[in-house]
Amino acid sequence: MPELRKDPVVGRWVIISTERARRPSDFAPDPVKLKGGVCPFCEGNEDKTPPEILALRQNQGGRNGPGWSLRVVANKFPALRIEGDLEPVGEGLYDKMTGIGAHEVVIETPRHQESLATLPESAVANVLWAFRERLMDLKKDPRFQYALIFKNHGEAAGASLEHPHSQLIATPIVPIMVQEELDGAERYFRYKERCVFCDIIHQERQHGTRIIAETDGFVIIAPFAPRFPFETWVLPAHHQPAFEEIQPNEMSGLARQLGQFLRRINTVLHDPPFNFMLHTAPLQDGSFHYYHWHLELIPKLTKVAGFEWGSGFFINPTPPEEAARFLRENGPES
Amino acid sequence: MPELRKDPVVGRWVIISTERARRPSDFAPDPVKLKGGVCPFCEGNEDKTPPEILALRQNQGGRNGPGWSLRVVANKFPALRIEGDLEPVGEGLYDKMTGIGAHEVVIETPRHQESLATLPESAVANVLWAFRERLMDLKKDPRFQYALIFKNHGEAAGASLEHPHSQLIATPIVPIMVQEELDGAERYFRYKERCVFCDIIHQERQHGTRIIAETDGFVIIAPFAPRFPFETWVLPAHHQPAFEEIQPNEMSGLARQLGQFLRRINTVLHDPPFNFMLHTAPLQDGSFHYYHWHLELIPKLTKVAGFEWGSGFFINPTPPEEAARFLRENGPES
Repeated sequence: MPELRKDPVVGRWVIISTERARRPSDFAPDPVKLKGGVCPFCEGNEDKTPPEILALRQNQGGRNGPGWSLRVVANKFPALRIEGDLEPVGEGLYDKMTGIGAHEVVIETPRHQESLATLPESAVANVLWAFRERLMDLKKDPRFQYALIFKNHGEAAGASLEHPHSQLIATPIVPIMVQEELDGAERYFRYKERCVFCDIIHQERQHGTRIIAETDGFVIIAPFAPRFPFETWVLPAHHQPAFEEIQPNEMSGLARQLGQFLRRINTVLHDPPFNFMLHTAPLQDGSFHYYHWHLELIPKLTKVAGFEWGSGFFINPTPPEEAARFLRENGPES
Repeated sequence: MPELRKDPVVGRWVIISTERARRPSDFAPDPVKLKGGVCPFCEGNEDKTPPEILALRQNQGGRNGPGWSLRVVANKFPALRIEGDLEPVGEGLYDKMTGIGAHEVVIETPRHQESLATLPESAVANVLWAFRERLMDLKKDPRFQYALIFKNHGEAAGASLEHPHSQLIATPIVPIMVQEELDGAERYFRYKERCVFCDIIHQERQHGTRIIAETDGFVIIAPFAPRFPFETWVLPAHHQPAFEEIQPNEMSGLARQLGQFLRRINTVLHDPPFNFMLHTAPLQDGSFHYYHWHLELIPKLTKVAGFEWGSGFFINPTPPEEAARFLRENGPES
């Protein structure tokens, strides 16, 4: 059973994932790559994954069989376990909890060689629709305080399978990084009576130097203080606390913008490995009117080293104004 | 001039390092390795580095010439600049500051093929002595609030040169991760009137399962909630807020323990890439009696991916009890 454990000094929780337990020999250098094997996410291999939680099928094909355009399944090697009760216990000065949570995979397309950059807009919109459906469903489970949707693209970004997919991990606590954003946004709202993200958008529009694109109700910016070269945020132009509140017409606008943005970074940075993370309001009750959901995207171009791990201070060799300029100059119109 | 910039939501500072500015083409995949070139840290190549800040020489050899056993020099490509005044300015809702700081390199030995695991205890003690000397000296500069000493060993851990070296970056603000530890330790001290790290050592001794070694006045443990497999903390067994307070006999005890520990991980994990970071009290006035310095060491065995970057929540596949057991079983006596 996986375990959630809290650091007694800084209060950071970690997942000790016993289901994926690794011994020293598993970390041997240059592990053999399992490429060329059977891809469990390709059409026809539906029996290689846990059963479907959600799927899109055009012609009413049977559940867990071929004929789909998108599938959501449980992760076969989940970091957290879906069954069980939350049991917070102390152990001297330490705190721990049963590792309850959901770990799902969104298989974005049956076609192995595609990606969100090459799929048609409607297929990207379907992926976003699946994100929203899963958030709405997981909201019903009172054990889960948060669901983080994310993507690992490319081996350097942590992907273990090539086939286009995103993931979702629902946790019994709001992750520390999201909590820090919520706290910061709430503090700002109390002081200014305005959303900090709305103010950021306003100021970025005046400057223009860090705006990468703005159309279809979404603003794509290089943030003022990015941790990584070419770090990018995609925000709804109008205030919207939770991703679930997105409307169908906004969903297609976001799909168009996201596809175009990914084609831009592929051009400028030669199909880089990247991660994206959806930051949205927590799942359970509470008013998060001061928050503004957004997608954070980080190409994996530099190595994170001792200074960053020891300080939380990031050294970024690419000013965001330059990153934004390169990406603007490689827009779909250019 | 490099710039420090603060994220307006979470308050995290980053360094926008213009002196190392990188264009998209610099991030091209599979960059050519500059191995086999002239190593600027080897004896005889002293003119390839900036001038010495500190050195150890047996036979009174000339400054910046051969005959040394350890050198400290400024980093040739510093993340921060040593000259100038701190100028905090606002830019609408954003905050920034001139990128003032020190960035130094401790060249640990003239011999390219050695490491802290192979050097004699006295040479490791000299490296620790150099850390202490530099902290004492940088304390005199009121512009610097903190100095983080760290090591990147191996390419996957971010090392760009093979020759054994550690680094030091002094910053005009206390880094967020250190501040979080200081805050947590202070909170605990106020509540319990005890040091949280002393309490951790006490509890770990009772359990024993996460203790890797304890001799010479130092305790080496696998922390209860580690972010990474085989993450390890080295703490002085007796309360000591700042590394500078270390006594000569403690320094040799630490050197012995550190060398032995590095040989253990090299045996168990086959010479893994790793980082270590020295967490000590801030440089300037203030009472940090509630803090307890320690060295954090993280082998680079897993990839950090979207979930971690988006949540601050780490998934660790190796329980610290197992990591400690493997390391204990490969002690110098075994």
